[in-house]
Amino acid sequence: MIKIAIIGFGTVGRGVAEDLTEKKEYLRKNIGDYKVVAVVDSKGSITGDFDLLKAIEIKISRGSLPKNQNAMEIVENLDFDLLIETTITNIETGEPGLSYIKKALERGIDVITSNKGPLVVAYKELMELTRKNNCRLLFEATVGGAMPVIKFVNNCLAGNEILSIKGILNGTCNYILSRMEKERMPFQQVLAEAQELKIAEADPSYDVNGIDAASKLVIVANALLNIDAKFDDVEITGIREITPEAFDVAMEKGYTIRLIAEAGSNGLIVSPRLIPLQHPLALHGTLNALLIKTDLAGDVVVVGRGAGKRETASAIISDLIELYG
Amino acid sequence: MIKIAIIGFGTVGRGVAEDLTEKKEYLRKNIGDYKVVAVVDSKGSITGDFDLLKAIEIKISRGSLPKNQNAMEIVENLDFDLLIETTITNIETGEPGLSYIKKALERGIDVITSNKGPLVVAYKELMELTRKNNCRLLFEATVGGAMPVIKFVNNCLAGNEILSIKGILNGTCNYILSRMEKERMPFQQVLAEAQELKIAEADPSYDVNGIDAASKLVIVANALLNIDAKFDDVEITGIREITPEAFDVAMEKGYTIRLIAEAGSNGLIVSPRLIPLQHPLALHGTLNALLIKTDLAGDVVVVGRGAGKRETASAIISDLIELYG
Repeated sequence: MIKIAIIGFGTVGRGVAEDLTEKKEYLRKNIGDYKVVAVVDSKGSITGDFDLLKAIEIKISRGSLPKNQNAMEIVENLDFDLLIETTITNIETGEPGLSYIKKALERGIDVITSNKGPLVVAYKELMELTRKNNCRLLFEATVGGAMPVIKFVNNCLAGNEILSIKGILNGTCNYILSRMEKERMPFQQVLAEAQELKIAEADPSYDVNGIDAASKLVIVANALLNIDAKFDDVEITGIREITPEAFDVAMEKGYTIRLIAEAGSNGLIVSPRLIPLQHPLALHGTLNALLIKTDLAGDVVVVGRGAGKRETASAIISDLIELYG
Repeated sequence: MIKIAIIGFGTVGRGVAEDLTEKKEYLRKNIGDYKVVAVVDSKGSITGDFDLLKAIEIKISRGSLPKNQNAMEIVENLDFDLLIETTITNIETGEPGLSYIKKALERGIDVITSNKGPLVVAYKELMELTRKNNCRLLFEATVGGAMPVIKFVNNCLAGNEILSIKGILNGTCNYILSRMEKERMPFQQVLAEAQELKIAEADPSYDVNGIDAASKLVIVANALLNIDAKFDDVEITGIREITPEAFDVAMEKGYTIRLIAEAGSNGLIVSPRLIPLQHPLALHGTLNALLIKTDLAGDVVVVGRGAGKRETASAIISDLIELYG
């Protein structure tokens, strides 16, 4: 019986809880018996023997879980086998997720996270903890939501050397740039439209300044290129300065403009780049994509939805099967 | 020590032999010690203790391997653990590969194949043989060369239900159609150009009539949708009738035309279809792609080189690691 604690009970945490309920039969066949023994948010928790869907109801109707043991108390003391960590991302400190993940790994507990912060801040340290304590940390959900790039490289491209990676890691920027390409409207106007559609946040800086793409790039580069990349190593240029006229010039020559994150022999770079209109990365809408340059298989591209509750939860479920399947 | 027999020593078989030599250190770390104990072509074989690169030299300089035990004698009698089968494709009989694969599986020997024929003709029968004899048959190389779709779905999308698949499974047709889109030249003219570039065969029927795409579709549908699809179930329309004018009409409305292979609730269909210009399947050149519609992860697309010696060999090597890694 795999005993699971879910810390972070927002959209993603609840999405996972729903999948664990809806797909019970399938999952039991693949990973054996399991049980969620704790759900935790920043205000409280439910532990012990409880109904998972009921817990979701409580969270939604009350806005938070009942005051009870807090996350750290649970990670330190509860008897469980797997931490599913979906708290809010802070790429400067990695907290609060970083402390929870470290404590769990120190106890030899496996961790699946959708939280970029801890990995951007402490990738190497966390991986060393897994080796030392003979447990695993999976993080497919941190990069590109439902676009399973980490597993793709490790499982599907086994035998290949990865020479470089290059992709679209932020759906908001891709939406804005592909709308600008199509409508030739100014950045601010498309941004306002994206905010109305909830594709961009009220404060869009994290996305449009390239911070989010850079965070993901650090994680992918660490995981796939086996280097010790840090956030400060990334040269970042956002998309605020791109004008509709830039698209006029680019398209005359058969190019479009996309925010590209790249890691390879030139270091780590996030910047708007000219992409041939016929290139697989000349994508439209909020899609994410990663082009992986390999020695044997040539260039392989994975395209998928970068975000979304179901999509991110799906990545966590696939990690669960990778761990115990 | 994994003892390997390579049957079929053309481009792909030799590509595998090269990879097994060049990547020895990496592979030994991942799958343990291994040794190629036989290489076989339609004329002869080399068995026992021999140098693999020397065998390649002999094959290239003489045009064939020395007259010796034939393939069936080797599959029936030699002591080995893995058959790598890369003989020529015949989608009507599956032969000669089908007999070799069946015999190997009956002996409990694992098989990796790049040969579509046996799988198109006898997918279900072969899978039953693997269950009965407790061995495995992997075939990533049969579909889309370096585009690892089978492993992708099984390993990376675990937990998802696959609702349908839809893709570009023939690089020759995609080259021709994307050239027609760009240059608005007639089919015959682009075909002649593709033949000159060795992208199309002297007799292009197998590709441009949709037969190759349909064969791959049967394999992918069997493997990923868990149905019992046969070649005759596929409704096939080729691309010979597509005119430059069709592109004029399509593109006016924001579409292009591609040969799409699809399996889902509408059955199995290979036909030229309208694809929005901004769609991830509106690809150019000889690329292959598969769009996988899932319940949790939404639509995910894999794009890669469909053919090529290194690419196909790479798929075989990834199967090798999947088997013994």
